[in-house]
Amino acid sequence: MHLRLLPLLLLCLFARCQTKTGMPNANQTRPAYALAIHGGAGTIRKAEMTPEEDAAYRAALDTALTIGESILRGGGSALDAVTATIVWLEDCPLFNAGRGAVFTHDGRNELDASIMDGSTQAAGAVGGVTSVKNPIRLARAVMEKSPHVLLTGRGAEQFALENGLDTVPPEWFFTQKRWDALQQILAGEKKNAPQGRFVPPNSGNPDTKFGTVGCVALDREGHLAAATSTGGMTNKRWNRLGDTPVIGAGTYASDDACAVSCTGHGEYFIRYAVAHDVWARMAYGGLSLREAADQVVMKKLVEKGGEGGLIAVDKDGNIALPFNSEGMYRGYARPGERKIMIYKAE
Amino acid sequence: MHLRLLPLLLLCLFARCQTKTGMPNANQTRPAYALAIHGGAGTIRKAEMTPEEDAAYRAALDTALTIGESILRGGGSALDAVTATIVWLEDCPLFNAGRGAVFTHDGRNELDASIMDGSTQAAGAVGGVTSVKNPIRLARAVMEKSPHVLLTGRGAEQFALENGLDTVPPEWFFTQKRWDALQQILAGEKKNAPQGRFVPPNSGNPDTKFGTVGCVALDREGHLAAATSTGGMTNKRWNRLGDTPVIGAGTYASDDACAVSCTGHGEYFIRYAVAHDVWARMAYGGLSLREAADQVVMKKLVEKGGEGGLIAVDKDGNIALPFNSEGMYRGYARPGERKIMIYKAE
Repeated sequence: MHLRLLPLLLLCLFARCQTKTGMPNANQTRPAYALAIHGGAGTIRKAEMTPEEDAAYRAALDTALTIGESILRGGGSALDAVTATIVWLEDCPLFNAGRGAVFTHDGRNELDASIMDGSTQAAGAVGGVTSVKNPIRLARAVMEKSPHVLLTGRGAEQFALENGLDTVPPEWFFTQKRWDALQQILAGEKKNAPQGRFVPPNSGNPDTKFGTVGCVALDREGHLAAATSTGGMTNKRWNRLGDTPVIGAGTYASDDACAVSCTGHGEYFIRYAVAHDVWARMAYGGLSLREAADQVVMKKLVEKGGEGGLIAVDKDGNIALPFNSEGMYRGYARPGERKIMIYKAE
Repeated sequence: MHLRLLPLLLLCLFARCQTKTGMPNANQTRPAYALAIHGGAGTIRKAEMTPEEDAAYRAALDTALTIGESILRGGGSALDAVTATIVWLEDCPLFNAGRGAVFTHDGRNELDASIMDGSTQAAGAVGGVTSVKNPIRLARAVMEKSPHVLLTGRGAEQFALENGLDTVPPEWFFTQKRWDALQQILAGEKKNAPQGRFVPPNSGNPDTKFGTVGCVALDREGHLAAATSTGGMTNKRWNRLGDTPVIGAGTYASDDACAVSCTGHGEYFIRYAVAHDVWARMAYGGLSLREAADQVVMKKLVEKGGEGGLIAVDKDGNIALPFNSEGMYRGYARPGERKIMIYKAE
């Protein structure tokens, strides 16, 4: 290409890279750290939340941000920040991950989690574990102490025992709210399908919530990390895994561009490799984080019928929190900046 | 951009899209069909194969191509072609998938498979099944008869029973060669790690083979499909899943660009979302199939230390079969064209 065309080409690229909305980093220099979290997306309407519930979720998200931020402010790694933040969110019974996870068709809690280190692209994931207190710690142990990326079911639990992770009895994960949600769906199934015909999870349910927790971080050294944890879908069967334990679908991180954690109707996030797609649109398409995340969540997923959202941070500290559902529990923090949101118009 | 620059831009794009090596479609028009298969990559040296072994593998690959080709030639769908081809490769004891699968540390056969329809991007996958004769049929049933994409372990087997898939006793999958391979590794572990310390699969083993079978196809309607099936790594533990059941890592298909099936050291293929990465380099980077596949396998994976290869077909009928190991069982067919290869220099 002629050299005299170069300025014009650069101008075009620059114009493409401008963000339309979102939380661009106001400083031109990279912030000392950046952190974003989510607690799931779905049909979350202000009119249906009591002020107490609203306040409880905001307080929980605030505490989670404080935990991650304190590590990053002290010079800790993005990997440690996302791990500690997710551990706290797993232990908090408000969210569908760890304690407070939804129940399977058989009345069990089957937990999935994954983590990825943007600096090395090492990754660890677990699917369908039932006795490990913090699945995200197990995902990290898989990453650091095994030659593998993805372990499942009893084998993953055996690995947890061999590596001294905390295990708990099934009742640790129990919450009345999630149990009642399963009973309600089972009663509906019985009524609508008296011959025992299977009704797909969430089918025809206008009140879908895709409970998941996620965290992405940029640390002082410029390293990125992402982590995601979930109990999956209420009434799930057949040891179904969603996008959370699938690296490239629910979680992705690479220091050259961004870190991403997703929440939503997992099957769609797997088919479109959503987390990796955000990365690829930046890496190969030259898009900004905001453009890449918006195109995937607000355009591609909307066209395909995939409900949900994601959180992402790029190597310059920009943050994107797009979702195409009615709400998403979410928040972010950078030096001197903190915001927590639940509904669309905030 | 000025309109007068358009021809120049198109010229640049055209120049980028030229393939350097490989099997470009000689006709300028899309062929009636295109089909490619693999039977695993790894340390496959001519000097170590008897003429009988060499001939047996070539004959098996030839039969597999004939099965897929007959469906495509008759106007059948890419999806049906990849399914039937993989079923045959699973039943053939030469390859590490279905009958002939490698053994886990515990002396079992745990099978993984996935399939993706490029026309709808529907996908199905199963991980760690032990009693289903043809895991690829189960992956397709997950895609077509469940609301899910990924089922694992006993749950996946329960789904197989509910959907009337053929089940077999464990001895169906037994082959002496694979059993002996496990015993050899276990003996090595015992010798090298007398305290029972774990030796990662394939660590320090110069004779690695990443057995998998895969098939990609383009049909008369212009639809693409990809399918992959494997027994995983010899001596694997903890219900480890590799890239085969991970949509985006081991398998991907989208009619707008290409269909991809991978074979190799699965953990690397998961971390770099290899199958989706080939698609993304075409979709966002404007590369040709050959360029995209070569950049991922011969550059990115080589730099990262990830051994293996892949097969891919694009919407114009071009085929790429790159691998960075010593050999890969592979072949392809288009109208009037058929080639079967094992080693590098063929």
